[in-house]
Parts: sequence; structure tokens; C-alpha cells
Amino acid sequence: MRIDIITVMPEMLEPFFQCSILKRAQDKGLAEIAVHNLRDYTVNKHRKVDDYPFGGEAGMVMTIQPIDACISALKAERDYDEVIFTSPDGETFDQPMANQLSMLDNVIILCGHYKGIDWRVREHLITKEISIGDYVLTGGELPAAVIADAMVRLIPGVIGDEQSALSDSFQDNLLAPPVYSRPAEYKGWRVPDILLSGHEAKIAEWRYEQALERTRRLRPDLLRKNNGEE
Amino acid sequence: MRIDIITVMPEMLEPFFQCSILKRAQDKGLAEIAVHNLRDYTVNKHRKVDDYPFGGEAGMVMTIQPIDACISALKAERDYDEVIFTSPDGETFDQPMANQLSMLDNVIILCGHYKGIDWRVREHLITKEISIGDYVLTGGELPAAVIADAMVRLIPGVIGDEQSALSDSFQDNLLAPPVYSRPAEYKGWRVPDILLSGHEAKIAEWRYEQALERTRRLRPDLLRKNNGEE
Repeated sequence: MRIDIITVMPEMLEPFFQCSILKRAQDKGLAEIAVHNLRDYTVNKHRKVDDYPFGGEAGMVMTIQPIDACISALKAERDYDEVIFTSPDGETFDQPMANQLSMLDNVIILCGHYKGIDWRVREHLITKEISIGDYVLTGGELPAAVIADAMVRLIPGVIGDEQSALSDSFQDNLLAPPVYSRPAEYKGWRVPDILLSGHEAKIAEWRYEQALERTRRLRPDLLRKNNGEE
Repeated sequence: MRIDIITVMPEMLEPFFQCSILKRAQDKGLAEIAVHNLRDYTVNKHRKVDDYPFGGEAGMVMTIQPIDACISALKAERDYDEVIFTSPDGETFDQPMANQLSMLDNVIILCGHYKGIDWRVREHLITKEISIGDYVLTGGELPAAVIADAMVRLIPGVIGDEQSALSDSFQDNLLAPPVYSRPAEYKGWRVPDILLSGHEAKIAEWRYEQALERTRRLRPDLLRKNNGEE
């Protein structure tokens, strides 16, 4: 998989991709992530990539020319499955979408910044708009990192046995059960006896019941999805 | 406002807080953000902060001792309004929650990593669990950055006129209307005539209608919130 991220703040994103599982995925040749500075594509001599909005609103708008130039340059190199724009009013990102995206070959993610981007970019150049949640952020850089992280960790071989993706929350529409580690007692707070019993079948049963109970209490909507009601 | 972030990957978060609006907020003295390396608080001589889970599941668990030590050290310095843990099964983060959090004085955010954290931390040390969305990430670092970004940009004085927080999506439960910038025509794609008309009242009316139409089509749930139906 290759992910090309277009941003006005490459210095904010590059350190992130040099860390942790995203770094490991790149080192193993399972993912390639390239961060592109939008300013490298503007024809403006002051390297400006934003301008005032028509109609006199507050805020600056990212202009269409450098975005179109950058996307065109990338498309000349390879075919892309999706050109994603991160926006609070996009389709809400969730684990099924992460699963789908993790199977694609080449993806562009355009990070919005300032007050917004010229609408014509969204109409003509973007194929998919994604929101990571109902909140407003300074820019699309964090959402791009979130989407990349969620996608890349699902590529087979990226995470090892130490973190089994299949038992994560949401993969089976159940919240994960509680986990405990040493010491068995800390400041009088004890680990449940069942987990110290060594009885594998009973432990598995306890975990399932805990996951079900927590999901019923905290996220009953996930169980309705399992029953095909949504 | 002061935000203390506890993580096993400080190198992933620190560059982010040196950028953009979070940097500006700190330079202006409006926010203070401190990133703490959890490994500095472990009594383990190999600086380990994780261990095998009781009951023999796959994955490593963050142990309670270093987390308790770090939170205790911070609490000895000042009072905290909330000790937040980022978790996919927490309360879903949204703009009203961002508004509330932006009015607090001191907040700790603990980033989960590996398979999870010892449950006793969540039972006894955490006051608020937040999920940024229904998807699984490598760790709690990106969610912590998302929460910090959404909170800090709402502090009065952090963002200037160039980005009016009040007209953002979600603040009035309406999606933002389209914005356009120069050129008025690009590759045959034209800006709507109304925005070039100079007629302020009609432009304001057009924007409101666009916002309403987009919200009705894409996010009718937000309008129900406005009508007090939810």
C-alpha cells in the first residue's frame, strides 16, 4: 500500500510516520507513506496556497491551483483508488471503513487547513470525504494520521502476535474485556480470582461475558449491528 | 490551561505540539502542554512499563505502577479537573465536550498503548474515558493530540480573526456552507455568481440555505439536536 499525504504542515506529520508501527510497516516494505508539501506546487511567487474567500467571510481558503497541480503530478506517476479529503462533514470513519481502505493499493489524503478549501476541489478532484468525528480541529493533519494509522495496522504482517488485531474492540462489534497484569495485588486492588485460576475455558467464558456486559451497558448500538438490525 | 500528557512515545507527540496553533497558544501563555515519558516513572530496572496479561491472552498490558507513580507526581504539583484516558470504548468525543473541556484549568491525558492498560488504572485513577471514534489505533497518542488540539483552539485568544471558531461546523449544529477563492474560473469550473455579486444580505441568505441543505442531506441528526429532539 502507498499513501500520499498532501499538507501545508509536513513538519507536523513527518515525525509521526517515523515512529512506532507506521515506521515498522515501512521498514518491512508493507507500506509506503510520502508526505508532500503543498507549497511546492503553487505558482504563486510567495509560495502562498491560500487566499480570501469570495463573498467576504472571515478566514482564509486553500486555493485550487496548487492542490490540482499536486494531485495531477501524483496521478501521472500511478493510479489511485481514492483521493480522500479529511473534513468534519465527511462520511464518519469507523472500523469497517478502515478494513476496506486497508485493502487498497494507492491512496491520496489531502489535509484541509485554514477555514476550508475551495469547493471546486471537493466537487471535481476528491473521490471520498472522511470525518474522524464530530469535532473541529486546527487542520486535517491529525485526521490524516489517524486514518493512515488505522489502515496500516490492518495490513497483514504489520502487527505481530503482541497485538492481535482480531481481538480488538469493534472487530466483532463487542468492546474488549478488561485486562490485568502484575502485580496481582496493588494498594489493596486485586485482580479477579478467575484470571489467576489457570482454567482456560472458564477464563474465555468470563472474558466473553465481560465483553458482552460492557457492550450492552456502554454501546448497545454495536449489538444491534451484530443482529443485523442496522 | 495546562495539559499533561503521559505516553510511552513522547517522540511521537512532542513535534506536534511545536507546530501550528498549539505552539502559538503556548507562546502566548494561553496554554501549557507537557509531555511525560512513562518510562521515567517505572521501578523496573529495564524501564519496562508493560507485562503479560493474567489469564494468558495475546498482547502486552501497561502495568499500574508507573502510571500511578506518574499521576501521583503530577497531582502533588497541582489539582487536576480530569484525568482522561483515551480508549475506543470511552464516551464519544464531540464539539460540546470540547467546549466543556476547554474551560478547565488542569487536565491529564493518559495515552494507552499495546493491548491495553491494567483495568485497575481505569477503575481507580481515571476520571473520564474518551473515544475519538469507532476505530482502533496503534495507541492513544493521536487521540490525545486530537483532544488537545480541539480544546486549545477554543481558548479565547488562541485563534485570530483568520479562523473564526464560531462559524465552524457543529458549533450551531449546522455543517459549514461551501467556500470559494480565486480564481473565479478555473478549468471551466466557476464560482457561484451570488458570491461575486457584492450583495451582503443575499450572500448571507445563500450561505444559510446552503448550510441547511447540506445538513439536511448529510447529517439530519444534527438538525434534530437543534430542535431539542435528542
